[in-house]
Amino acid sequence: MERPIEKITPFIVMDILARARQMPDAVHMEVGEPDLPPSERVTEAYIKAIKDRRFFYTPAKGLPELRERIAEYYSREYRVNVSPERIIITPGTSGAFLVVFALLTNEDRTLVLTDPSYPCYKNFMYFLNREPLFVPVSRDTDYELRAEMLDALQGIGAVMISSPSNPTGGLYSEETLKNLIFYAEEHGYWFISDEIYHGLVYEGRARSALEYSDNVVVINSFSKYFCMPGFRIGWMILPEALVRKAEVVVQNIFIAANTPAQYAALEAFDAPYLLKVRETFKERRDYLYNALRGIFEIDVFPEGAFYIWADISRYSNDSLSFAERLLAESKVAVTPGVDFGSNETANHIRLAYTRSISELQEGVERIKAFIERL
Amino acid sequence: MERPIEKITPFIVMDILARARQMPDAVHMEVGEPDLPPSERVTEAYIKAIKDRRFFYTPAKGLPELRERIAEYYSREYRVNVSPERIIITPGTSGAFLVVFALLTNEDRTLVLTDPSYPCYKNFMYFLNREPLFVPVSRDTDYELRAEMLDALQGIGAVMISSPSNPTGGLYSEETLKNLIFYAEEHGYWFISDEIYHGLVYEGRARSALEYSDNVVVINSFSKYFCMPGFRIGWMILPEALVRKAEVVVQNIFIAANTPAQYAALEAFDAPYLLKVRETFKERRDYLYNALRGIFEIDVFPEGAFYIWADISRYSNDSLSFAERLLAESKVAVTPGVDFGSNETANHIRLAYTRSISELQEGVERIKAFIERL
Repeated sequence: MERPIEKITPFIVMDILARARQMPDAVHMEVGEPDLPPSERVTEAYIKAIKDRRFFYTPAKGLPELRERIAEYYSREYRVNVSPERIIITPGTSGAFLVVFALLTNEDRTLVLTDPSYPCYKNFMYFLNREPLFVPVSRDTDYELRAEMLDALQGIGAVMISSPSNPTGGLYSEETLKNLIFYAEEHGYWFISDEIYHGLVYEGRARSALEYSDNVVVINSFSKYFCMPGFRIGWMILPEALVRKAEVVVQNIFIAANTPAQYAALEAFDAPYLLKVRETFKERRDYLYNALRGIFEIDVFPEGAFYIWADISRYSNDSLSFAERLLAESKVAVTPGVDFGSNETANHIRLAYTRSISELQEGVERIKAFIERL
Repeated sequence: MERPIEKITPFIVMDILARARQMPDAVHMEVGEPDLPPSERVTEAYIKAIKDRRFFYTPAKGLPELRERIAEYYSREYRVNVSPERIIITPGTSGAFLVVFALLTNEDRTLVLTDPSYPCYKNFMYFLNREPLFVPVSRDTDYELRAEMLDALQGIGAVMISSPSNPTGGLYSEETLKNLIFYAEEHGYWFISDEIYHGLVYEGRARSALEYSDNVVVINSFSKYFCMPGFRIGWMILPEALVRKAEVVVQNIFIAANTPAQYAALEAFDAPYLLKVRETFKERRDYLYNALRGIFEIDVFPEGAFYIWADISRYSNDSLSFAERLLAESKVAVTPGVDFGSNETANHIRLAYTRSISELQEGVERIKAFIERL
């Protein structure tokens, strides 16, 4: 029998990225990290932390000051009251997923994920020797997981969604989010909200799961909106009953996250700078969405994150070979849908707008020319 | 039935540390991180990395240049040839333990650890839902695990030791180390060598497991000898057959280690500075060992690391309450033996020499006075 850990799959996009990096004139529409730097205030605080020799371990839960800043941010941004005691700093959201999945699932009660979704989610579960349950989502429900889709499922420990979503860029409606949270609570399992793309929302407003319940797990990080991916600093906000358990796990398996980066993150909530980040990505989104609409079917309007989920079925039903040929022949790197699951992923690709508009324009021109030759 | 993850224990030393930090005049002999800063070259490289905006993710295996520097270090230090391809950078040794234990053990084949040993080892296994096997070690074998002790054991996936050892400071003899490696290989299980205290060796020379076989796993980090604990940068050196599997796991569960800290680590191999680090710790070791010898029985001569494992049975058979009273009454923080296992740990404490000699002297005076009052 195959052990679950053997099922951990490499990101296909990483191979594409590696090949694209060999091409000096490739257009990168595959990269899931922002090209913008963090606020200057962050950089200055980072340097100061190093000059001040902030080189010792922080407490396992993270710098108390940072946990307070995050709590303040939730109060300002979402009007929710979160005690810093419920916030734990982690090495990226990756660290949070590992701890939370380990605590909230077991051999009998597993994790529900959408198909498609972020490829690592399932791999954390395989790492823990557990099999997640996948619920296919599609344009029929705006790629949202809806509470009624959980009716038929047995053995759930936790349900997890991301909004804005990777790979679609779609934002869950308030109604769907609220219903899911109440449904999970009513049925006695946990709700986990991956809010890493919050802030990068160009229409309406992303609601935190915390606006509906204190009994949910929220995971977020400084890697996307705050433009600090290589810092590897994320956080999780936990119901009180889980805090001490999670702290003990974190203390043992991570010790703590990088210390100077935690000091730098104290300056991350730089509102004027973050506004500029959002505007930059909104302009790119507007450009790319309008440019691609004439080429591909786009199932879901990308209200957030920095991705567009494009249906390529006019041209191909094999997203992997489509992506490979697009790279080899036209030097445009995109992520094949199959990286994200098996539900209609062979006829989708994900395009990221983590590059300047002029680079995106070049990419679009090359895609058009590539398609004409098909 | 208790789930293994529920068995993850908090470090008792963390509670003691937290209490000691509330006392402005406490003497810290509990802390497992060096008080010395890293080399100035490291600090400068760290600042330069930030000014150069090295904020993107590195490849999952880590910066290629850093992996090359580590390979060169093994060539200089141990005269072994290690391809950088076999080296993976991890978030501290913590990250390496997690990945290696997940890959090399399963439900049927577990990890052998000594009792006493570093408390987290077992907790990584509990996190992975597995039960380690403990082999008691004591003064009878210089606290070494010996190959013949494995004869009676069944269901082994890997055997792990640390040398110099935490908590004893003892260094494995070449003979014992070599025998263990060959024995494991012969019996078809893996040998894992935690070499995090290498460099901090004051008599003789620590041998890397790689000097005897390429078919072993070596784990190390910049946290101790290189004085960079809060950087959270470690590494693992793997047999070729495991490299790709480990890379895929690392890519999924960590993405990569902190980027600026990896650039800083490029300058860590600063031989003149490291010599001073070693000399500083040797002087402290000499002082503390001689001072404590008159007070406690010391089972094993502390040739390395920065710990002394002291037998307190003249005074107490309850190391936890001994440590608690010593802190409360005399403001000296030490680690109770029970943090490290259950084999004769109730009559031992661990004393760290991670503070200046004058602070250690003050600690010794207070311990003497405390004992006189017992």
